[in-house]
Amino acid sequence: MEIKYPEYLKKVQTYQPGKPVSELQRELGLNEIVKLASNENPFGCSLSVKKAVERYATQINRYPDGGAYYLRQALSQFLEIAPDQIIFGNGSNEIIDMIGRVFLSDGSEALFFEGSFVVYRLIAQISGGRYREIPLECDFSRNLEKMLESISERTKVIFIDNPCNPTGFANKREEMNEFIKNVPDNVIVVLDEAYFEYAKPHGVPDGIDYIRRINPDIPEKNVIVLRTFSKAYGLAGLRIGYGVARKEIIQILEKVRQPFNTNALAQIAALEALKDQQFVQFSVEENEKGKQFFYEEFERRNIRFVPTFANFIMFHAHTAEELYQKLLHQGVIVRPAFGFRDYLRVSIGTEEENIRFFEALDKAGYSCR
Amino acid sequence: MEIKYPEYLKKVQTYQPGKPVSELQRELGLNEIVKLASNENPFGCSLSVKKAVERYATQINRYPDGGAYYLRQALSQFLEIAPDQIIFGNGSNEIIDMIGRVFLSDGSEALFFEGSFVVYRLIAQISGGRYREIPLECDFSRNLEKMLESISERTKVIFIDNPCNPTGFANKREEMNEFIKNVPDNVIVVLDEAYFEYAKPHGVPDGIDYIRRINPDIPEKNVIVLRTFSKAYGLAGLRIGYGVARKEIIQILEKVRQPFNTNALAQIAALEALKDQQFVQFSVEENEKGKQFFYEEFERRNIRFVPTFANFIMFHAHTAEELYQKLLHQGVIVRPAFGFRDYLRVSIGTEEENIRFFEALDKAGYSCR
Repeated sequence: MEIKYPEYLKKVQTYQPGKPVSELQRELGLNEIVKLASNENPFGCSLSVKKAVERYATQINRYPDGGAYYLRQALSQFLEIAPDQIIFGNGSNEIIDMIGRVFLSDGSEALFFEGSFVVYRLIAQISGGRYREIPLECDFSRNLEKMLESISERTKVIFIDNPCNPTGFANKREEMNEFIKNVPDNVIVVLDEAYFEYAKPHGVPDGIDYIRRINPDIPEKNVIVLRTFSKAYGLAGLRIGYGVARKEIIQILEKVRQPFNTNALAQIAALEALKDQQFVQFSVEENEKGKQFFYEEFERRNIRFVPTFANFIMFHAHTAEELYQKLLHQGVIVRPAFGFRDYLRVSIGTEEENIRFFEALDKAGYSCR
Repeated sequence: MEIKYPEYLKKVQTYQPGKPVSELQRELGLNEIVKLASNENPFGCSLSVKKAVERYATQINRYPDGGAYYLRQALSQFLEIAPDQIIFGNGSNEIIDMIGRVFLSDGSEALFFEGSFVVYRLIAQISGGRYREIPLECDFSRNLEKMLESISERTKVIFIDNPCNPTGFANKREEMNEFIKNVPDNVIVVLDEAYFEYAKPHGVPDGIDYIRRINPDIPEKNVIVLRTFSKAYGLAGLRIGYGVARKEIIQILEKVRQPFNTNALAQIAALEALKDQQFVQFSVEENEKGKQFFYEEFERRNIRFVPTFANFIMFHAHTAEELYQKLLHQGVIVRPAFGFRDYLRVSIGTEEENIRFFEALDKAGYSCR
């Protein structure tokens, strides 16, 4: 009883879920786990969010508001962008999926740099689209001119995660301005700014400025900016992100959005999280301190790493898989840096977690000395 | 700067979100709202669910478990089906979407009865598939033989919401058995059992029995059963549903599932909700009482209605739109019965809410006497 389904899906591997952390912990007999694997906010989320979630727990029998009215109003004011220029997703991941579905399913081509966020390739595949990966420079930086030169007749979407996951690299404002200026009108540029809050103090562009039309020298282009509440706002478990673009693009994406795609608690939580910018500020500042600590400790051990604009660091490990396992067995979970052999990615945690990471690294006997 | 996107999407209307209930309430100056519009559980959800959500609120900075390990284990035991025969969705709505995407995007045809859950048509449209609607009988019942006869070369998926939303009609076990026996091997039958818990005591089949292979007289077919935690379990706001099928079908659907499609609180809540079958039982019993009350009150007023197998009732209103507005202005929200002109759909509420509904109906001056 074989079932027919599209050829392009046959190449897609079915996701094999791993065991949850708590199961691993039980199996390995670990007292404590330090999870530095998913670039989550190690400080949790705003206290007012927790309270709002608790308060709202009595109303979860009711469907979410399909239009995310209150969150949309608040975000519109916060971003200084019209309410109908925003689309909400079940994580910004879902918006990447919508983009693939709407713009790549006719076999169009997506471009992105090698070693970009793995989801771009996956989405291009499951949408029935094509994709091409643009090589990185030797230091893992990204040459946007090279991206421009790579645009073909077929190119419909360019995905740029800025900063990039897992390298942590980001293109600066001036080079991005040049890129946007010169990108053809018929190409959609997706600036995935999941780590924007961490990158903002370091000269990384605010992609929404291209939609706000802040700079009169840069003509209007088809830019979609993706942001999330999963990182600096600390709401990864609730799944809520958004896309910003001009109204016409949002309206097209809305066609494939399911009305209740964002859950009620996520909407409530995001609304509260947005109000507490102090928590975001605190998280970003702590991340800066943690970053400096990582840099110093890596340097001290002569371990190569890529300077980061986000809340994670990619570092060299000549036996990455082995080191990953050794750290795991000490209760420290990091992540392979997808697309980069011999590299691991570690999220910047609390001060205590960061110290634990280096203790585990030393116990694993890893350094480049 | 026109943007190219598929022709079939151009026909799809962009969803225009209405205002949330609380805004309506404010605008209309209403003290109290009785929402009988979305077939939610009027008794909320299990107390243990609320407690679990409150407890887990401190961990929402962590990503959900992509494999829904604990919920999968529990549901597997509860349903007596293997863990790899279950797929979880951001509401069962998302699984309908996955089915459309995988099986209809090559232009294949979906069949469903007229007046089925509106999402089937929408999903067929946004997937680039075709669809055909099979006429109902005069009493709004559904002739499954007619469905069998309607299958064409093109037919890939048959959607049957059993019970149907909005009519409340359900096909019984014997006729469904005959249908499944005779449906061709290359057709996928989606039994959407969102209201299963309410229908179960009334001779409506448990579609999962076709996957469990309970009845040796019925050969194995390609059946996908959809269930949800949004209705009897009272978790509509959290968005979690699931599909059950043989492993090979689940594996295909998993290719288009995004790893973090179900949020962490939904997983926790569903796990707790599953444990509290007493709450489900209570909800179903109260719904039976409410149903009898509605029947009697409708009959007393000589208002035509369709006997229901679910937690809502479709009733005749010669000026449906006007009556809808009159009820709304009294703070009672019902829903047009999509696909049925001159009909409204009312969810069965608490005893108090049901009484309020008929008070409002009387005040609106509506009866068929």
